[in-house]
Amino acid sequence: MNTVITIGREFSSGGREFGRKLAEELGFDYYDKEIITEISKRTELSEKYVQQVIEHSPHDLLPITVGHSFAYLHSSALEHTQAVFREQSNVIKEMAEKSNCVIVGRCADYILRDMNPYRFFIYADMESKIKRCRQHLEKDDNLSDRQIMRIIKRIDKSRARYYDFYTGLQWGNKINYDMCVNTSKMDIEKEVAEIARMFK
Amino acid sequence: MNTVITIGREFSSGGREFGRKLAEELGFDYYDKEIITEISKRTELSEKYVQQVIEHSPHDLLPITVGHSFAYLHSSALEHTQAVFREQSNVIKEMAEKSNCVIVGRCADYILRDMNPYRFFIYADMESKIKRCRQHLEKDDNLSDRQIMRIIKRIDKSRARYYDFYTGLQWGNKINYDMCVNTSKMDIEKEVAEIARMFK
Repeated sequence: MNTVITIGREFSSGGREFGRKLAEELGFDYYDKEIITEISKRTELSEKYVQQVIEHSPHDLLPITVGHSFAYLHSSALEHTQAVFREQSNVIKEMAEKSNCVIVGRCADYILRDMNPYRFFIYADMESKIKRCRQHLEKDDNLSDRQIMRIIKRIDKSRARYYDFYTGLQWGNKINYDMCVNTSKMDIEKEVAEIARMFK
Repeated sequence: MNTVITIGREFSSGGREFGRKLAEELGFDYYDKEIITEISKRTELSEKYVQQVIEHSPHDLLPITVGHSFAYLHSSALEHTQAVFREQSNVIKEMAEKSNCVIVGRCADYILRDMNPYRFFIYADMESKIKRCRQHLEKDDNLSDRQIMRIIKRIDKSRARYYDFYTGLQWGNKINYDMCVNTSKMDIEKEVAEIARMFK
């Protein structure tokens, strides 16, 4: 059976960089946005739409008005959500069966639980997440630290709701992972190279 | 400045084994029960008593009856508790200043925060903690899994209350650590040798 490594991550914690470096060190395939592209192909929904669906639990897509929610349950939005998750599961399973790989996000740890993947969770303190986020902003984005913090919190809240909805587990709760790594003070390039040796 | 590694750990999660192996790999000094012995020498309290004090927050030592608690605040039990924590801080700081070292438990991560130690937290699922605990029991201890689980939970509850009381932080909350390691499926001997390379 292939060695599969999954990476859950807080927004702007460097989880993607961590996963990419790990894959590079190990010569493993790396899947991140590729999953979105593949789902988009299979469902004939746009990548942008798939991305949006994949970042929200169905609850977030339902209207607040309870009186309308029954009708809404049959709406195309919810059908899309379910179809996307089904395809997401298929795509991720096919990737894991094809070769040794590192998969970032998308509930891969849960979807692949029968394959016993090694499950990382990457996190950091708010100060370093804000700093990292700022490095990725356009120069003319004049967001304050407070505004960036709000964005980070909103995205992580969505990730948590999505994960919790589909897995029945708690996103970021360390018992659901094999190793949780705080990148706040970390030299990712250097240290991931050492961590990678666990899998050699 | 010396490299200092601290190990917080759930009871029966293999934290001690993890720390000892790490120290061995790195050629660092290793401190665990040695801290108790040293405190005992300095305070002239017995090792057993120090051990008992160090595993409980002052709250646990106070009587439930509120009406008596004021008088109790001046009691020798509370004075001992404070004296032990003071000596514990001194001993741990001296150890950290003497050489590169691995220190297990005793709020060392917090006591040494100005030295910027690398902070591990070691944990595991209940099933594997029960299994590990059973390996350390005497052959004639006929405890059921349920009884062992209760012991594990009670000890961890005490550790959490003690840590939270003296640090104002939350024991086991991953944001307070640099790396959290789940030993449930782990080959500690092999994997710690690789993790150790981060510090070489």
